Amino acid sequence: MSEKLLGYKGKALDVLLDSKAEVGDLIRITKDESTYEGILIPRSELGDDKHVVIKIKSGYNVGVEVTSITKITKIGAKRRPAFTPPDLPEQNRSLPKVTIVSTGGTIASRVDYRTGAVRPAISARDLYSIVPELSNLAMVDTEILFSVFSEDLTPKHWIKTAETVAKHILNGTDGVVVTHGTDTMGYTAAALSFALQNLPVPVIIVGAQRSEDRPSSDAALNLVGAVLAASKAPFAEVAVAMHESVSDEAVVLHRGTKVRKLHTSRRDAFKTVNAQPVAKVSNGQIVMLTENYQPRSKERKLVLKPEFEEKVALIKFYPGMNPKVIDWHVEAGYKGIVLEGTGLGHVRQECFSSIKRAVGNNVIVAMTSQCIWGRVNMNVYTNGRDLVAMGVIPLQDMLTETALVKLMWSLGQKQDIDEAKKLLTTNLVHEISERSIEQSKSPDTKQTQKET
Amino acid sequence: MSEKLLGYKGKALDVLLDSKAEVGDLIRITKDESTYEGILIPRSELGDDKHVVIKIKSGYNVGVEVTSITKITKIGAKRRPAFTPPDLPEQNRSLPKVTIVSTGGTIASRVDYRTGAVRPAISARDLYSIVPELSNLAMVDTEILFSVFSEDLTPKHWIKTAETVAKHILNGTDGVVVTHGTDTMGYTAAALSFALQNLPVPVIIVGAQRSEDRPSSDAALNLVGAVLAASKAPFAEVAVAMHESVSDEAVVLHRGTKVRKLHTSRRDAFKTVNAQPVAKVSNGQIVMLTENYQPRSKERKLVLKPEFEEKVALIKFYPGMNPKVIDWHVEAGYKGIVLEGTGLGHVRQECFSSIKRAVGNNVIVAMTSQCIWGRVNMNVYTNGRDLVAMGVIPLQDMLTETALVKLMWSLGQKQDIDEAKKLLTTNLVHEISERSIEQSKSPDTKQTQKET
Repeated sequence: MSEKLLGYKGKALDVLLDSKAEVGDLIRITKDESTYEGILIPRSELGDDKHVVIKIKSGYNVGVEVTSITKITKIGAKRRPAFTPPDLPEQNRSLPKVTIVSTGGTIASRVDYRTGAVRPAISARDLYSIVPELSNLAMVDTEILFSVFSEDLTPKHWIKTAETVAKHILNGTDGVVVTHGTDTMGYTAAALSFALQNLPVPVIIVGAQRSEDRPSSDAALNLVGAVLAASKAPFAEVAVAMHESVSDEAVVLHRGTKVRKLHTSRRDAFKTVNAQPVAKVSNGQIVMLTENYQPRSKERKLVLKPEFEEKVALIKFYPGMNPKVIDWHVEAGYKGIVLEGTGLGHVRQECFSSIKRAVGNNVIVAMTSQCIWGRVNMNVYTNGRDLVAMGVIPLQDMLTETALVKLMWSLGQKQDIDEAKKLLTTNLVHEISERSIEQSKSPDTKQTQKET
Repeated sequence: MSEKLLGYKGKALDVLLDSKAEVGDLIRITKDESTYEGILIPRSELGDDKHVVIKIKSGYNVGVEVTSITKITKIGAKRRPAFTPPDLPEQNRSLPKVTIVSTGGTIASRVDYRTGAVRPAISARDLYSIVPELSNLAMVDTEILFSVFSEDLTPKHWIKTAETVAKHILNGTDGVVVTHGTDTMGYTAAALSFALQNLPVPVIIVGAQRSEDRPSSDAALNLVGAVLAASKAPFAEVAVAMHESVSDEAVVLHRGTKVRKLHTSRRDAFKTVNAQPVAKVSNGQIVMLTENYQPRSKERKLVLKPEFEEKVALIKFYPGMNPKVIDWHVEAGYKGIVLEGTGLGHVRQECFSSIKRAVGNNVIVAMTSQCIWGRVNMNVYTNGRDLVAMGVIPLQDMLTETALVKLMWSLGQKQDIDEAKKLLTTNLVHEISERSIEQSKSPDTKQTQKET
């Protein structure tokens, strides 16, 4: 495919070829009674063959559907779309102060015009200037912390992020927004949930599934929702702000310990698992979805506990898994292992002697389920009972990702293995639901008199 | 808790204590205008505190809700509930022939009265006798192949199962039902989908989330649905038959390559991911949900390809994952690795040199996503592009579990690495959706003219 019309195909490509326009040119699209003018921008591989996308003067992207009567005229020569941030809008000093800490990811990225791929590049200041509405919501201050794909983040980055957020809270901000790649956003959300205790103000992690210069970007709505929540949400917890549905309507605020990315590309990829989200932002209003939350209070004194033990592994079990993988981790000095077992929390009997050896070597071995929804229960089947008897710790309805992070954190807090275990199994920030939402719908609680 | 009233608590326990009845006793429950008689059976830890469960004369279990006016009277001394199968019902020789191959699991298990835990024990013949309706559906023949918890099954068991199913098909059965534990049922379903090619009749894998002697067991409905599908469904493919919802209404037939256990305990734990199920069984009727299926035809000649390479690993990526885990597998002689990456198919750059080394050692490295829904797309971000450039194979919208099984199978079929790779990426039994269902709902295909 030509670089000059990168990502275009089918009908849309045909009309563009007729117009002789290239990516970067200023074009005019005429269709029915409407006319659109803007700079032609490339499309992603995920795009359809029906839309031509232009960046209009305001900085927004518009996707125009091509029909048989659509006409495209080139009205200006090729130039790169202007991304230079305008001057910062005048700040309204009566508004709450919100700090945006940027770590990278799609929300802070754009298409690399050379390769067509997306690269992290944009600064928090750029983001702010792309969404001018932010100046009506808060006095925004920004800090670029990293510019990293989120799959490249490690516990070291969590520590640095927690410290940076804490610094801004101690400096008196009314709320913090952390922009982050979506790939490992759930892991970081859990990490900040444990590291930032006794929060006085909200910490909102936000990302985008499609970059800001794509027609279907979710960046603007998510960012507005996140800044709104940081500035005036009544809760003081760590939450993830992402689209509620594929339409551009509402943003859900998911609790940092209960959220998981469940779709590779959809804008509503993030879901709260085994619980209710904390709140949602709809029509500029924050709607609380639970009464059980820590209220915002500037009197509360933040407790920063940013230590994570890196020698903790996640091992997903599968049929025929080689138990020696467990041995290898023990020999490599790992101090904790989260086994993502099957069903209610099982692994094959062949693994038992390796698990015993791990426990005997003071490695904390904990169990979650690869089912994702529901709760492990290791008392139902003999394999589960045997595992508990040898010291494996069932982690209730904790997400595997949250379990990994919490085990890293527990071992970072406590040298003593029994104290670390106690911390791991104590519900601190809603990582364990008393009885998970899904579970409470289970038929046992609403069975009628006759069942076969 | 007393062994004598195992699993009972709260209100239900109080009423039972008053009655002096114990598990195994014959009791009478009087409530409103109804009277129930049967043998008191123990409850699971998952049960509520409102129901008393008895096994009535027909062999079914009944859960009776305890209210303030419920009375319980002991009318017979303790004895074990009678599990001895009655004589087989007279076979109707005009019905289709269905073979039930039993491998173990909850559907073939019952509570161990000694430990209170569930153990696999029951034979296919027992199952048949528990659900007498089966004799109206098919002439049922049974074979006990294993009696194993499904987490203990390995590729060796898949081979044996495929061979056994093939034997019965060659002997002229009209359909095969495989009873199986739910924990790894998705993996086995994928394995049989690849091993049993060109099927003339359906092969239906069935399980239960709660064992047959529990009040909320899903065993009977699932088994009836499975036998009905095996005997007369119009498709000849491998499918999984499990509850559609938590109510006892319909059974869904999920394609073997697209199904995943997504809840630890609910009866509707199994869902088709990124596609539509093949069919459902509702009110004794089979309703097809797709037109794209291989029709039943006894003329078609089964091709059995049961070879699986066991030296294939599944590695779930997580932040900070040690790349040496990859090296260890290469050194241990593994021939294939499925990486369950983040988002569109990513792992951290730190892993790149280990992945290069693996590929250089003729290990096939393939990528799926831990998001579960959606499709990997390694062309969007530079990390993804770099991974493809070094030889990592993106597996579209294939489930991780199916990808692991298919890589084992592809390497079992072909010695030549390029031929194995070709097999891995060729869509054989719907393991790859042309465009996944979820994806087609994505906003790119239905965007309106303006989006920010």
